Amino acid sequence: MIALKRNKIVLIGAGNVATHLGISLQKKGFEIVQVYSRTEESARQLAEKLHAGFTTDSKNILPADVYFFSLPDSVLPGTLKTLPDLPGLFVHTAGSVPMTVFAPFHPRYGVFYPLQTFSKDREIDFRNIPVFIEANNPEDELLLRQIASELSDSVTVLSSEKREYLHLAAVFACNFTNHMYVQASKILEDRNLPRELLLPLIMETAEKIKTLSPLEAQTGPAVRRDKITMERHLNLLENDVLARQIYQLLSRSIVFSSEQQ
Amino acid sequence: MIALKRNKIVLIGAGNVATHLGISLQKKGFEIVQVYSRTEESARQLAEKLHAGFTTDSKNILPADVYFFSLPDSVLPGTLKTLPDLPGLFVHTAGSVPMTVFAPFHPRYGVFYPLQTFSKDREIDFRNIPVFIEANNPEDELLLRQIASELSDSVTVLSSEKREYLHLAAVFACNFTNHMYVQASKILEDRNLPRELLLPLIMETAEKIKTLSPLEAQTGPAVRRDKITMERHLNLLENDVLARQIYQLLSRSIVFSSEQQ
Repeated sequence: MIALKRNKIVLIGAGNVATHLGISLQKKGFEIVQVYSRTEESARQLAEKLHAGFTTDSKNILPADVYFFSLPDSVLPGTLKTLPDLPGLFVHTAGSVPMTVFAPFHPRYGVFYPLQTFSKDREIDFRNIPVFIEANNPEDELLLRQIASELSDSVTVLSSEKREYLHLAAVFACNFTNHMYVQASKILEDRNLPRELLLPLIMETAEKIKTLSPLEAQTGPAVRRDKITMERHLNLLENDVLARQIYQLLSRSIVFSSEQQ
Repeated sequence: MIALKRNKIVLIGAGNVATHLGISLQKKGFEIVQVYSRTEESARQLAEKLHAGFTTDSKNILPADVYFFSLPDSVLPGTLKTLPDLPGLFVHTAGSVPMTVFAPFHPRYGVFYPLQTFSKDREIDFRNIPVFIEANNPEDELLLRQIASELSDSVTVLSSEKREYLHLAAVFACNFTNHMYVQASKILEDRNLPRELLLPLIMETAEKIKTLSPLEAQTGPAVRRDKITMERHLNLLENDVLARQIYQLLSRSIVFSSEQQ
């Protein structure tokens, strides 16, 4: 394990994923030698946290053993084109980008995808985050597994194709779920009711599926086919076209899902 | 408070809400004298838990101080018609039923609405559940406040009109959120990936809005306007018409919400 920790790491990108990953790697004893970001402020901030160097010029990126690319999906290919000749293993942390994005640019590459939602001001325990890895050769797959296992209790080798579905599922479980919170909060705040009233309900809704399948856990007017309540609710939403459409479509989908059981 | 606990309670209905409410009331020292349900098995089961009597014939309902009606919305008015002359206070526990449903049948009435999702096999701590009360006279509002305060730390007087919006918000925050979990689980299970992989993400998504507003907490391809990822995801969903429609509508709504900020 001492040899493992001797691997020098460079972070390419300084956003939420890079920040949480960098902090967690450093806590575990890995050496972050440099942070690269196009934005000097972001690069400097993260570098200071990690006692690392930083650069905004891709030509100045230092030699290292592993490069973690945590960049917006649309920026990654363009950045790869500008890189000088570098040693080591290139990995990205994206859900929907195939591993082969690296193929035209570098011989050793892989993926290190942590399935979690990262926000800058929230501490996160990496131990509980499932990490999905992939590499284009067995040695680097092993190296990634070793690094990932230092951070997380849940490490799985997963193909780029399956990872794309995992990312799609995460959009429903996280991004769309959060949008349900947005809609619910708006309904309350428009009536001067504090959105905090919903927190116990939101927490219990999430907790429930630790012991029940989501289909078993489904409650509410749609799954009960309670048409009177659904009509009432649609009337309450008459001035919000999008919320009405969401209510109708999701109610239809809940009925459909419960019929498939 | 001794006088308060002398109030005799009858539960009308023996479903999830009646069960959790009855158990919590009894734990606090209230006397449940009887359980009524149209289904003998349900009535008996809950009555045994509460060491109470039970009946399936509304004509045999006993005199009491407070009657809690936890029946399906569509069944409540029909049941009220069949009741004999009874004393006491009638309250229901429904989100979307106006208090005045009782007016043609009984002089003293109100509402006791706990904002939570109840499942039969899950224990729930009533302390954290916001309870919303309403009564047609100040004395009964006070009585309901006293009873509710025995169970919960959060008791609020709320009009029937506002309660309806609260219930609508709960459909988004709980029922529709759970349907997002259903969709996400289906995507994984169709690819032989265990749905448990999503649990840390789901818990963190819920936890986040304890410290961030849902709008601040929004992440994902839609809020980033990441059209490439969204197109990829829609392609992955090409054989699931409903899931595709949900993906498109919610992405549109996320973009719209972020523009309103």
